[in-house]
Amino acid sequence: MDATARLIELLGVDRVRTEPIDRMVYAKDSGVTAGEPAIVVLPETTAEVAAVVRIAAAFDMPIVARGAGTGLAGGAVACPGALLVVLTRMNQIVMVDEVGRTALVGPGLINLDLSHALVGRNLHFAPDPSSQQASTIGGNAATNAGGPHCLAEGSTVAHVLGVEVVSADGEILMLGGAAPDPPGYDLRGLMVGSEGTLGIVTQLLVRLTENPPQTVTMLIAFDDINDAARTGSDIIGAGLVPAALEMMDHEMIVAIENFVSAGLPVEADAVLLAEVVGHADGVAEEAGVIRSIAVRNRATDVRVASDEDERALLWKGRKSAFGAIAQAAPDYYLNDTVVPRTRFVDVLGEIYAIADRYGIRLMNVFHAGDGNLHPLVSYDASQPGMTDIVVEAAHEMVCVAVAAGGTLSGEHGIGLEKRDLMDQVFTDVDLDAQARISQAFDPARRMNPGKVLPDGARCFDRPSS
Amino acid sequence: MDATARLIELLGVDRVRTEPIDRMVYAKDSGVTAGEPAIVVLPETTAEVAAVVRIAAAFDMPIVARGAGTGLAGGAVACPGALLVVLTRMNQIVMVDEVGRTALVGPGLINLDLSHALVGRNLHFAPDPSSQQASTIGGNAATNAGGPHCLAEGSTVAHVLGVEVVSADGEILMLGGAAPDPPGYDLRGLMVGSEGTLGIVTQLLVRLTENPPQTVTMLIAFDDINDAARTGSDIIGAGLVPAALEMMDHEMIVAIENFVSAGLPVEADAVLLAEVVGHADGVAEEAGVIRSIAVRNRATDVRVASDEDERALLWKGRKSAFGAIAQAAPDYYLNDTVVPRTRFVDVLGEIYAIADRYGIRLMNVFHAGDGNLHPLVSYDASQPGMTDIVVEAAHEMVCVAVAAGGTLSGEHGIGLEKRDLMDQVFTDVDLDAQARISQAFDPARRMNPGKVLPDGARCFDRPSS
Repeated sequence: MDATARLIELLGVDRVRTEPIDRMVYAKDSGVTAGEPAIVVLPETTAEVAAVVRIAAAFDMPIVARGAGTGLAGGAVACPGALLVVLTRMNQIVMVDEVGRTALVGPGLINLDLSHALVGRNLHFAPDPSSQQASTIGGNAATNAGGPHCLAEGSTVAHVLGVEVVSADGEILMLGGAAPDPPGYDLRGLMVGSEGTLGIVTQLLVRLTENPPQTVTMLIAFDDINDAARTGSDIIGAGLVPAALEMMDHEMIVAIENFVSAGLPVEADAVLLAEVVGHADGVAEEAGVIRSIAVRNRATDVRVASDEDERALLWKGRKSAFGAIAQAAPDYYLNDTVVPRTRFVDVLGEIYAIADRYGIRLMNVFHAGDGNLHPLVSYDASQPGMTDIVVEAAHEMVCVAVAAGGTLSGEHGIGLEKRDLMDQVFTDVDLDAQARISQAFDPARRMNPGKVLPDGARCFDRPSS
Repeated sequence: MDATARLIELLGVDRVRTEPIDRMVYAKDSGVTAGEPAIVVLPETTAEVAAVVRIAAAFDMPIVARGAGTGLAGGAVACPGALLVVLTRMNQIVMVDEVGRTALVGPGLINLDLSHALVGRNLHFAPDPSSQQASTIGGNAATNAGGPHCLAEGSTVAHVLGVEVVSADGEILMLGGAAPDPPGYDLRGLMVGSEGTLGIVTQLLVRLTENPPQTVTMLIAFDDINDAARTGSDIIGAGLVPAALEMMDHEMIVAIENFVSAGLPVEADAVLLAEVVGHADGVAEEAGVIRSIAVRNRATDVRVASDEDERALLWKGRKSAFGAIAQAAPDYYLNDTVVPRTRFVDVLGEIYAIADRYGIRLMNVFHAGDGNLHPLVSYDASQPGMTDIVVEAAHEMVCVAVAAGGTLSGEHGIGLEKRDLMDQVFTDVDLDAQARISQAFDPARRMNPGKVLPDGARCFDRPSS
């Protein structure tokens, strides 16, 4: 019996897809890379995932796990001959513990669906990537996703207490747990952000966060983006950690307003969206400090959302950014890089200069609080060679950020897109340590091979040694 | 040339110790296990540590790294023939970045010395183990140490952003960094808590925490320890996360008052020490909620520290616990285990019953907020067989906690003391995954061998498979 027959025997014909149309549907994530899997399977239980992995091992097929496919770095894009394990049907909320403030969920659960299920309990799931209406919690964990509110709350790894994992040899592991500091090595933290290269997460115990008693959301407009950038770093420099501190440049503001009327000031060169949460007087005090820092940096307008509706509208603008871009041009390439806040202003200048030099249209929407830039190029991929130009420009932007003491990626992962840039931030010895981990968990290199680490990352892989 | 000669050549005769007296001085940590090293070295730089590790490798000597030796689980106790690497001379504060709120420090830096060095800058290092006057930040990282204020701030791993590590083959690695989510696998998180079995940390980039604007410290007395325990879990259950929530039982209160007059109510069966921090009205509101929960649970007295001096005195009582015990009896055995807060009351009862059955003197001082129990037995080790009895009783207490859904250790590490209990919380498959990590970093098993993982943890080590 061949692999397909074995899989059909396990899952039934409806959950094993091999037709060209099925393989095409699952060939892309939301980035620029693509690759058709050989077989697509849709397991519904941990036991099925384990059995699928053992079948793949028996036929020596590479395995790529996938959630909603909203990734931007190619982390869930199939390699040649891959068995693609689509986890979207494992989307249960198994348990919610209000006292312990945890939930046990399937990897296919959509991020926002968890918070929606918690309405009325004064709890929410803190990580809020812009994709949260579509992306899965398993995918958030695979990339250690961030989001506007991860500035104060930390990225996904701070909200995943434990994971159930199917290993490369089809065993089921439990990593981490509810205890404050589980004994042994922190394999939970290792699994989060590993992009499916160490195993497949089949269940997550996540931390739930109390809703804040008070929230103040402020929209601050500037005539010069450098003033906005300076305001962002001054706010953090002053010792404040707002719940969120987002920045959008003129091009982005205009694109958003054309898409949804969120009341953003289209004449502004840049806006900051700042949110502070907590008890009333603390919130008022922090909002006051932010206002005075903004005014000192020549803010032209400081608007405070007067009610929940206005607050929701401001956030709708920010979260509609990617929809807006889709409208502005058929394709976009969203970059993800981090710079030290102190180098914000000059790096931003260099990035705009690169875009001008390549003659591409650049928009910026990003997390100003933690220096996580998202330079975004909107373009038309049907123009011959255009995608290559955009990717080349984007790589230059990453190199500028790294040269300024920043790093490759803030929250979107490495995937295929940046694996060959890893040597920009890691020495051979560092990369070898990374490769030893994948070697330890996946000696046959069957789990999402070719992602995260460049070829020959392991010292003994390199002729040079 | 033998190993000693090579080491003297590298470090000079003064920093290489082989005399019986030297080996005896470094034979124990603060727990019950002991083991004399073959050679003791005191390196002062990362390059020296790397060279020491390469010499140990050349002579196939096991390597054990050690800070101040305040550990309680035997993690830094030498195995036979070990080269003991004492890091106390690597205690520099290399850099403090007030804007980025980070500090670069040596592993030998004493925890409290860092916060003292920050006085006047409105910053501190949050992890505050009771040993913080003596224990080193490297040791805190090795065990992922906790402390009263880790309830809200998280244990040491949340405060170590990056580590420089000398690997088992004498290479120098940089793991993690200041970026919110460094690319690649989180080897930083893996190294923290690994008790020197994966490499030797030679420098740490730590996160600094803003001092809170307002602090209220409350001492709450109870006639029945079960009311205190219930109050602790009710406070957390109500959605509050106090900055600290500590509990002491009657025996401990009396021992502390005999040692330092901290104004603890010696007639109480138990006290809770609760601290809330933040902006004025938030603090007042939370303190009010805590008071009413305590009163509902029949608290006999709720005292609020009226000034900084009274606050310091209350904490002095809590932090003098171990000094107090030393006075009560020549020896003590401090246990470290975690129970779900909901099982607090009954587990506590079972632990007292075990002490009664063994006829040993039990005191309890612990982190009520996160269910981290520290049952503490004071005894006289000169009585024949007494230590064995105490250890046996302590292991029974751990098993009770685990049976209640808790775990082996909250913050003191596994070391030697609990390695053979790991199978209580891990399956063979889980332990094998743990062992693959040590295999990946230390194939020759030279780094602190025999710690953390039980023998034969790796599946292929076991005859059974």
